[in-house]
Amino acid sequence: MNPNNPVLNHHISSQFNEDLQALNTKFMTMGGLVEQQVANAIRALLDTDATMAIDVQFQDNTVNRYETEIDEAITLILARRHPAAIDLRMVIAMSKANTDLERIGDEAAKIARIAQGLCEEGGSPRGYMETRHIGNQVRVMIHDALDAFARLDVDQALKVLLADADIDREYQSATRTLMTYMMEDPRHISRVINVMWVLRSLERIGDHARNISEQVIYMVKGFDVRHTSVEEIEQKVQR
Amino acid sequence: MNPNNPVLNHHISSQFNEDLQALNTKFMTMGGLVEQQVANAIRALLDTDATMAIDVQFQDNTVNRYETEIDEAITLILARRHPAAIDLRMVIAMSKANTDLERIGDEAAKIARIAQGLCEEGGSPRGYMETRHIGNQVRVMIHDALDAFARLDVDQALKVLLADADIDREYQSATRTLMTYMMEDPRHISRVINVMWVLRSLERIGDHARNISEQVIYMVKGFDVRHTSVEEIEQKVQR
Repeated sequence: MNPNNPVLNHHISSQFNEDLQALNTKFMTMGGLVEQQVANAIRALLDTDATMAIDVQFQDNTVNRYETEIDEAITLILARRHPAAIDLRMVIAMSKANTDLERIGDEAAKIARIAQGLCEEGGSPRGYMETRHIGNQVRVMIHDALDAFARLDVDQALKVLLADADIDREYQSATRTLMTYMMEDPRHISRVINVMWVLRSLERIGDHARNISEQVIYMVKGFDVRHTSVEEIEQKVQR
Repeated sequence: MNPNNPVLNHHISSQFNEDLQALNTKFMTMGGLVEQQVANAIRALLDTDATMAIDVQFQDNTVNRYETEIDEAITLILARRHPAAIDLRMVIAMSKANTDLERIGDEAAKIARIAQGLCEEGGSPRGYMETRHIGNQVRVMIHDALDAFARLDVDQALKVLLADADIDREYQSATRTLMTYMMEDPRHISRVINVMWVLRSLERIGDHARNISEQVIYMVKGFDVRHTSVEEIEQKVQR
């Protein structure tokens, strides 16, 4: 039972309540796992911890399994329970957010693969400060997006949308810095490019956290805020 | 009416038939538009056609509008018609593939933005041959994936999965070539990096075409083949 989420226990059919709660529990467990995967991938890179880098890549199978199971559970609920109104929106939102969580898992695995390569080469390339900073921010974004989902919290979701705009700016600036490093010392081009891929993955993770937050707003408010500026969304939500 | 797709006209309710057909038509129109966007983005880059580059970025709004409308239509069908079996799988597959089409549109817009920048700088950087080659291949993949979707053609879908494996290999090789260009002539690092982003976008487009093909197999066969090797999928499908 989740006392913060009124959608999960308002049904006359107790079986429907149980199905939705089981789905929700699985979704939140997957979310927690994915958040941990991102944290571990960044740690593997910054601490040059090859064992952890391998573990993250291995654990991606678990993330993938969750994705499959969640989609199966969603299909069963749609086929048997014919959810309507906010129930239907929750199921649809979870179906979309499930894809985003799995993609975040993919990006974490990509970062871990690069981390493993850099561990084997040894040494610590430039651009790690930027990676640490942006990495911490996207971790918080994933956490906040999942929290907003669990508590149907539109304000929290808006916070994530604003954070994503920051990430995009910092990503641009970090990319420019890395470009300068490459021009200064072309011998390190290949390593710096790898750090660039890591930053790109982090930026993509921020986008996915944003997508999940957009689904929270859809679920609670019933309107689609994708392809809408944060300012417009804020106005719409406050109406 | 689509004579090749038996799902679209087998229902007792003619209203249900009409709803599904309208959805399918919209989905296929969006698919055609997205395919064109990718073709135009690559052309803008290779022909240094700034007008076309701007047009592709502008047209991305149309793609986004389709995404929203298709998801609305899907929600209405789920709420009113309670589809079951292959109808339900088709609606779910379209919901997932809709996201992939929109992301392909995003990647096309990204390529167009880079093309615009490179037009303004003038000159033709290295790596265009690789771009042309991989670009042509992913265009064919999108086309084949949509064709497989329209005709419920599992063999065609498998063909796309095999093509994606090729793209991934060619992308790796092209990336290595570009890295060599940068080391040979560090003055062009920033331009070559831009071509690298284009190749990355093309590789992502290939992944999305693969995702759509996986949804075709799910729709027709009823099993989830994501996170499964092409060899395993071929065995499963032939059983």
